[in-house]
Parts: sequence; C-alpha cells; structure tokens
Amino acid sequence: MSAFTHFNKAGRARMIDVSGKDVTRRTATAQARLLMQPETLAKIRGGTIAKGDVLAVAQTAGIMGAKRTPDLIPMCHSLLLTGVDIDFKDDPRPNREGRCSLMVMAIVTTTGQTGVEMEALTAATVAALTIYDMCKAVDRDMVCTDVCLLKKAGGKSGAYVRKT
Amino acid sequence: MSAFTHFNKAGRARMIDVSGKDVTRRTATAQARLLMQPETLAKIRGGTIAKGDVLAVAQTAGIMGAKRTPDLIPMCHSLLLTGVDIDFKDDPRPNREGRCSLMVMAIVTTTGQTGVEMEALTAATVAALTIYDMCKAVDRDMVCTDVCLLKKAGGKSGAYVRKT
Amino acid sequence: MSAFTHFNKAGRARMIDVSGKDVTRRTATAQARLLMQPETLAKIRGGTIAKGDVLAVAQTAGIMGAKRTPDLIPMCHSLLLTGVDIDFKDDPRPNREGRCSLMVMAIVTTTGQTGVEMEALTAATVAALTIYDMCKAVDRDMVCTDVCLLKKAGGKSGAYVRKT
Amino acid sequence: MSAFTHFNKAGRARMIDVSGKDVTRRTATAQARLLMQPETLAKIRGGTIAKGDVLAVAQTAGIMGAKRTPDLIPMCHSLLLTGVDIDFKDDPRPNREGRCSLMVMAIVTTTGQTGVEMEALTAATVAALTIYDMCKAVDRDMVCTDVCLLKKAGGKSGAYVRKT
Amino acid sequence: MSAFTHFNKAGRARMIDVSGKDVTRRTATAQARLLMQPETLAKIRGGTIAKGDVLAVAQTAGIMGAKRTPDLIPMCHSLLLTGVDIDFKDDPRPNREGRCSLMVMAIVTTTGQTGVEMEALTAATVAALTIYDMCKAVDRDMVCTDVCLLKKAGGKSGAYVRKT
Amino acid sequence: MSAFTHFNKAGRARMIDVSGKDVTRRTATAQARLLMQPETLAKIRGGTIAKGDVLAVAQTAGIMGAKRTPDLIPMCHSLLLTGVDIDFKDDPRPNREGRCSLMVMAIVTTTGQTGVEMEALTAATVAALTIYDMCKAVDRDMVCTDVCLLKKAGGKSGAYVRKT
Repeated sequence: MSAFTHFNKAGRARMIDVSGKDVTRRTATAQARLLMQPETLAKIRGGTIAKGDVLAVAQTAGIMGAKRTPDLIPMCHSLLLTGVDIDFKDDPRPNREGRCSLMVMAIVTTTGQTGVEMEALTAATVAALTIYDMCKAVDRDMVCTDVCLLKKAGGKSGAYVRKT
Repeated sequence: MSAFTHFNKAGRARMIDVSGKDVTRRTATAQARLLMQPETLAKIRGGTIAKGDVLAVAQTAGIMGAKRTPDLIPMCHSLLLTGVDIDFKDDPRPNREGRCSLMVMAIVTTTGQTGVEMEALTAATVAALTIYDMCKAVDRDMVCTDVCLLKKAGGKSGAYVRKT
Repeated sequence: MSAFTHFNKAGRARMIDVSGKDVTRRTATAQARLLMQPETLAKIRGGTIAKGDVLAVAQTAGIMGAKRTPDLIPMCHSLLLTGVDIDFKDDPRPNREGRCSLMVMAIVTTTGQTGVEMEALTAATVAALTIYDMCKAVDRDMVCTDVCLLKKAGGKSGAYVRKT
Repeated sequence: MSAFTHFNKAGRARMIDVSGKDVTRRTATAQARLLMQPETLAKIRGGTIAKGDVLAVAQTAGIMGAKRTPDLIPMCHSLLLTGVDIDFKDDPRPNREGRCSLMVMAIVTTTGQTGVEMEALTAATVAALTIYDMCKAVDRDMVCTDVCLLKKAGGKSGAYVRKT
Repeated sequence: MSAFTHFNKAGRARMIDVSGKDVTRRTATAQARLLMQPETLAKIRGGTIAKGDVLAVAQTAGIMGAKRTPDLIPMCHSLLLTGVDIDFKDDPRPNREGRCSLMVMAIVTTTGQTGVEMEALTAATVAALTIYDMCKAVDRDMVCTDVCLLKKAGGKSGAYVRKT
Repeated sequence: MSAFTHFNKAGRARMIDVSGKDVTRRTATAQARLLMQPETLAKIRGGTIAKGDVLAVAQTAGIMGAKRTPDLIPMCHSLLLTGVDIDFKDDPRPNREGRCSLMVMAIVTTTGQTGVEMEALTAATVAALTIYDMCKAVDRDMVCTDVCLLKKAGGKSGAYVRKT
C-alpha cells in the first residue's frame, strides 16, 4: 500500500516531493487507438477537401495538450518538455465489427526529476479526441481504445516496455 | 464529404459558425473504462490509507477538465456548462486476462448553441488519466479503453443513444 | 445537510445543474484587507519611483483573476462576466500592533444563471496577493485578512448584505 | 476624454460593465501581414517536406488564440465565440526591399454584449507569430506588420470599415 | 525604497531578472484560516453524505492553484514545483463571536532560482476559497483570515520564521 | 529545406527535441510599434484621468503574455523565464499620414535549452494589443506594425542583431 505515493500522512492526496531525485533525460511513448468506419478513415486519409488537415490539427492539439498536462492531472509535476512528436498509423483492414483503426503514438522527452508518462498519455488522448471532434458529424460511434504507456526510459524506476 | 463541417472553402480547419443555431438545453454522457489488476482496484476502493481519495481527486480533475475542453480541442466552441457530474462503477470480476475494470461516467449539461459531447468525453478521459497517474506506481500496465459517447440530447441533430 | 448542494447521490462532488435557473443580472462585492507596516503603505501610496504602480498591477491581476475563477475553484460554473471593478481604500492609522491596512474591494457583475460571489472573492484575493508579492522584499510579515463577501444581488436566493 | 471607457472614477482600469448592452450578432475581421524572403514563402507554399503544414499549425494556433483572448488582454470581456475562420493570401511579388508577404486574415463571430475586435486581432497575430516561430530558423528577419481591424458589424457603435 | 525590486528604471513594473541567482532547494509554508459556524465545521468534518469530500476537493484545488501561481500573480516567476502538500487543522472551540475555525496549511518546495512564498500563499488561499464555495449555501458569512507566510528556507535572503 | 526543423520524418509538425542542447543564459529583445492619432498618444501620455494607467495595464499584460507563450505558439518549448522587462518610447512627430507612434520594447531572459525570441515577440505584441483594446473607443484605426526581433544572445546559433 505504501506504493500509493501520492498520499500524505493524513491519507490525503499531495504532489509528492521529488526534490531529491536526479535530473536525468527521460522519455515516454504512449498510444491511443481510434476505431471508426472504413469510410471515415478513407475521408481522413484521402479526402479531396481536407487533405490531411484532420491529422494536422490533431497533432497540433496533442503537442499543446502535452504542455497542458500539469493543468489537467492534479498531482502531476510541471516539467520542461524538451520534445514532443506525434505519429499516426492506420490499419485499414476492418475488424470483426467492420471497423478500421487509426493509431496515435506520442513520444515525449524531458530532462528533469520526474517522468513524462502522463504527458505522453495526454498528448495521445487529446490528439485522438480532436480527431473524434472533427469527424463526429460523419461517425458519432467512434471509440477511443487501447490508451496505454508503451515504454519509458530514464529515472530511478528505470526502463519499462509494455508486454504485448 | 460535405459532412466534414470543420473545413472552410480552402480546405482548412475552422471553428464552424453556429450563430444561427438555437439556444437549447443539451446533455451528453460519455464513458471511459480503466482495466487494472484486481489488487489495484481493491486498493482504490478499500484502501485504509487513502479511503476513496483517488476517486475524489479524479472526479475533481474530470470536472475541471470539462471546463478546459475548448483550450484542448482546437475547433471546439466555448460553452457555459450548467452542470457536470461524474460517477464511478467497478466490475471486480476479472476478465480473461485477469484484469478488473473501473468505469468512469461523465454527464454534462449546457444551455447553448452546440452540444457537449466533447466536454463529456474530456471529463471522462481526464478523470481516467488521473486515476492512472495516482496508481501507476503500483500498476503501470493499466489501460484506458472504451472511451465513447453513450448518449446525447438536445440540438438540431437530435437525440443519440449508443447501440451496445 | 441537504443544503450541501455540491454533492451527488454517491456523496461525491459535482458541479450542480443550474440549467433550470433564470438568467438574471447578478452582482457581488467582496473585500480583502492587507495589514502592513506604515512605511510599506507610505511607499505604495506616495513612492516617488513607483507612483501608484503596485496598485495598477494588483488591479489588473484582480480583474484577470476574476476571469480565471472557474479554472481555480473546481465546482464553480463558468460565467460571462459583464463587468469587474476594483477599488482600494487605505487606513493609515496604525492598529494596536502598529500596522496600517489597505483594503481591496472587488465588484463583479454578470447576466447569467449563477452568482458571482466566487469571482468577487477571487478578484479581491488575487489583487491582495499581488500587492504582497510586490512588497514582500520590504515587509514579509504582511497579512491578508477579512476576506469576505460584502453583498450580493440577483438570483433566486436574493439579496445578501453582510452584517458588520 | 470620457471616451476612455476603461477607467473608473479613481482613474484606474476596470472591465467596463456591459450588462445593459443588447445581445446581438457581432463579427470582426482583422489582418496581420508577414514580410519574408521569397525563398521562405516558396518553402511554406510549395515545400515538398512540409506541404502546407506551417499554415495548418498557424491556423490551429490562431483559432485557439482567439479563444484565449480574455486571458491575454486584461480588460477584455469573456465571450462565447460562435465561429472563427482564418485565411491566408500571399503576394509573391517582392517589395522594394525584396521581400514577399503572406497575409493572415481572421474572421470571428459571436452573439453577445460586446464586440470581437480583440479576438480577431489576437487570432491574426497568434497565427502570424506561429509562422514566424516555425520559419525563424531559415529567416529570422521576418517582420509582422499591418496588424489592424478591417471591419466589424453589430452592436451599438455599428458597422466599421477600414479606409485603405 | 530601492527594496521595491519589481520596478525598472522608468518606475514601471517588471519581472526582475534572477538569472544570476543560485539554483537551490527552497521551501515555503503558508496558512489561511476560515472562520465558520460550528455546524458548518461539523458538517465538513463528520457529514454522513459528504464524508471528507469538501476537503478532498479543496486540497486538489490548492495543489492545482499552486501550479497556476505565475498565471495569477503578474510579476511572479514560473518555477517547477517539486512538491506541494496541504494539511487541514480545525479548532472546534468557538471564539467570542461563536465561530470555529478551520486552518489550511500549504507546504511547497522547489529547486530553483526564486522562492515559493507566492505558491504557498496561493495554494492555501485557493483551498480556502474552494471550501467557501462548497459551503456557502449553508454559511455565507464565512471569512478567510490570517493568510500569511509562516516560514521559508533556501535562497540568498535565507530562512524566515514568522513571529507569532 | 532541412532547416525547417519543426517537421518530423512524415512531414508533420513536432516540438523539436532540444534535450541535447546546452543550458545557457539567453536573452531576446523584440519590438512592436503602434501608429495612432496624435490626440490618442497625448491622452495616453498626459491624460489627467488615466495618468499612465494604459501603459501600466499594457505592461502587466505583456509580462503575463510572455509567460503564456508556450500555450499560444504550438511548437514552442516551455521555459522558465528569469526576467521580463517592457519599455515604452513614443515618437510624437506625426508621419506623412499624420500619425504618431508608440513603441513597445520587450526584453526577456532565461537560463535554458532554447531561446526566448517567441516570448519577447509575444510580450511586445500582447502589450500593443492591450493598448489597442483600451484606446479603441477613441481611435479604432490604430495599427500595430514593425513587430520584429531586435537582437538575441546565447545558445548555439549565437548572437543576432537586426540590421536596420
């Protein structure tokens, strides 16, 4: 139970003191997957009107969202992010329910005293929600799924790689 | 393709003009599910130290997140939310992979010219990410899944209820 | 106990639904008093270098703070403030402890479904803390006291005037 | 002098009370011009790598900036923007100094009690600064100029059209 | 007068240049006291419905408020807070006016070039205002008082401990 | 073309990774010029009612705007600004069109891994737009012009001084 490090002696939440931790380079990679109708994916990818713009907006939103993480996640420390990159990968093969998927990947780096897992997760999620927002008029049933940390490096707790 | 209402004549993203829309009462309900180890759920629910605090922080974060939606989702209109409520439901029965789930539900209401789907989705997602943040030291493999709109009411496009 | 309107059925905090409330003009006036050394007040009021600037900065900060209230106070509704005014009154007569006082008064108005008590309190407090910040190098013992609502008008709960 | 409506009786700045004003549809159009080397404009417009992305990011930034206006401009009222659109026009003919120009135009609409001049100016300016940021490695001498209101409509002061 | 370090040569406010200061560990502790009716305190502390939730929300708000300090206090430097903790202490004995008090204490740490006095004061104040917001329906006369710095450590100006 | 450092391999925008850069002291100076009617400038400078307050508000806005830069400019890194100073210079001699000018100068310093050009440009621009906001009732034709970087120092790309 002592691993619940976000609580003080009175059992209340706090932002844990990391002032004794080393300043090291840290990275984290997170993903979020959007399930959608094949036509929706086709419109995002090949649309003659919008030519890629949905993803350009989503990516900008994800990068800005990463910077807003400490404003959103209460116990999260402010950090100076040294880099944020967002990538998109699509799987146009329909699943059993006939839906395709668009994967959002976010890579965040910092040099600081805590990790950037939450920043990577926030970047991926905000980018995915932005895609939902821009496409909801054509596909309100879109689902955001598989939001998780893929890997992280740096810091005392060391490297983490998600087992698939 | 014309349904991609977020694009102007030049094919660039814009915040669509809703000034001709009616001011009506609108509601939206969204969810986000967190998969976790049974011990993690037990700690959140029954922990003697933290007694419910994880959820209290998550709920506060979700409500505040709903208010920040237009700062996060670029083409989303600012709205005066008239109410935000967040509820948690847990399913302690492990799934095939041995993981339990904690469901976050967010209900948002407004009286305005556009809907609050994005606010409900943002509230549920920020609450879920906050739980992840506070528990990641004990269960870094947690996954946020099934983030979707459950129902909405009000406005020109009318009622929507998700088919399960 | 039912008067604790900020809690849902599960006993958790929520932003209460005000969508059934009338849209009316609402005003609130709040104050915050700063106790300080007579020399500090003299410097603020008559300083040849800074000529009133401390108060100009404090006032700007108070007005901007009023607009940020829903970002700070979790269960507070967003509102479109139609006016914010901040006034300063000083009492140069030392109290028993030899300290003078500078009073900050904030008046906030809106036309909406909830009151602006929190906006007025936030405006007064942020202005007072800004004065503290700018003068702390010369008087770190300054105290902010008597932060309270003086009066409000509009809305269902009607007028309130503080008894002195 | 009484036209300086942003000051209270004590001569201090305030957010003026607009609660007596009519709620009407209001629009404003503003511009910002960026002067740059012809090669910079060619790269923005025709670059094989970045294909339009600079403008997609700038446009997203401009729209988000419009929503942040009351956080930036102290005496500016919060408003619910009902629409924001940003357009780019380039003039590839070099001026006397050999520089081309890229014009940013922002159109903002609201239904409210005050105008959206500041939102349109902020949108155009933030979009222009974003272009500067993304191109400064190749052309640090870029200048943002001719930032002004082109026209506005709605509200008591009526229509305004800039004389060229 | 030269101690008013927040002013430039023209007598205007500035954010003072701290780039020559040492990076050291710094802490600050501040308090804010809320005076309220004994029944209000009893409801906060022992309420069967809300079981501690008022304080959980207040604490979350205080911690998030600490991170927003440079957005609120104009001349305050941005800092990476390494820890924020908030504690509550109540004095159920009524004072001469029959009111009890609930004390909010905020402890903030950083490793940086300026102190965190303003962050501690902001955390305590925002937490206190949040309690006011959640209880104002039952006790609108609550007063926030004794907002002050209790102690600080680190930095060139050295340790400070408030004399009671 | 490779100098467009803000793009990843897929040609999409990213926040470039600066974690390998040296932490050095960096400064940047930027300007923004406001053209206005001579009477407007006279009112700002000598007005008996507003006595300098327009500039006090503008300066506060500019300093706060500098701190908000990474919230506004998508690909801009967060930095801990160690100092921000804003200065005003007026040229009361009318130009050919009969307009005077008020120059805003912003100097920003940091100790970090990237430069503060965008922060200086944002500070100068926000201050200029604030002056526009406060004076637009008397002179809606005001134009903001000559927004540019004057000089910068520190970092790998070295010193830059604008040629006039």
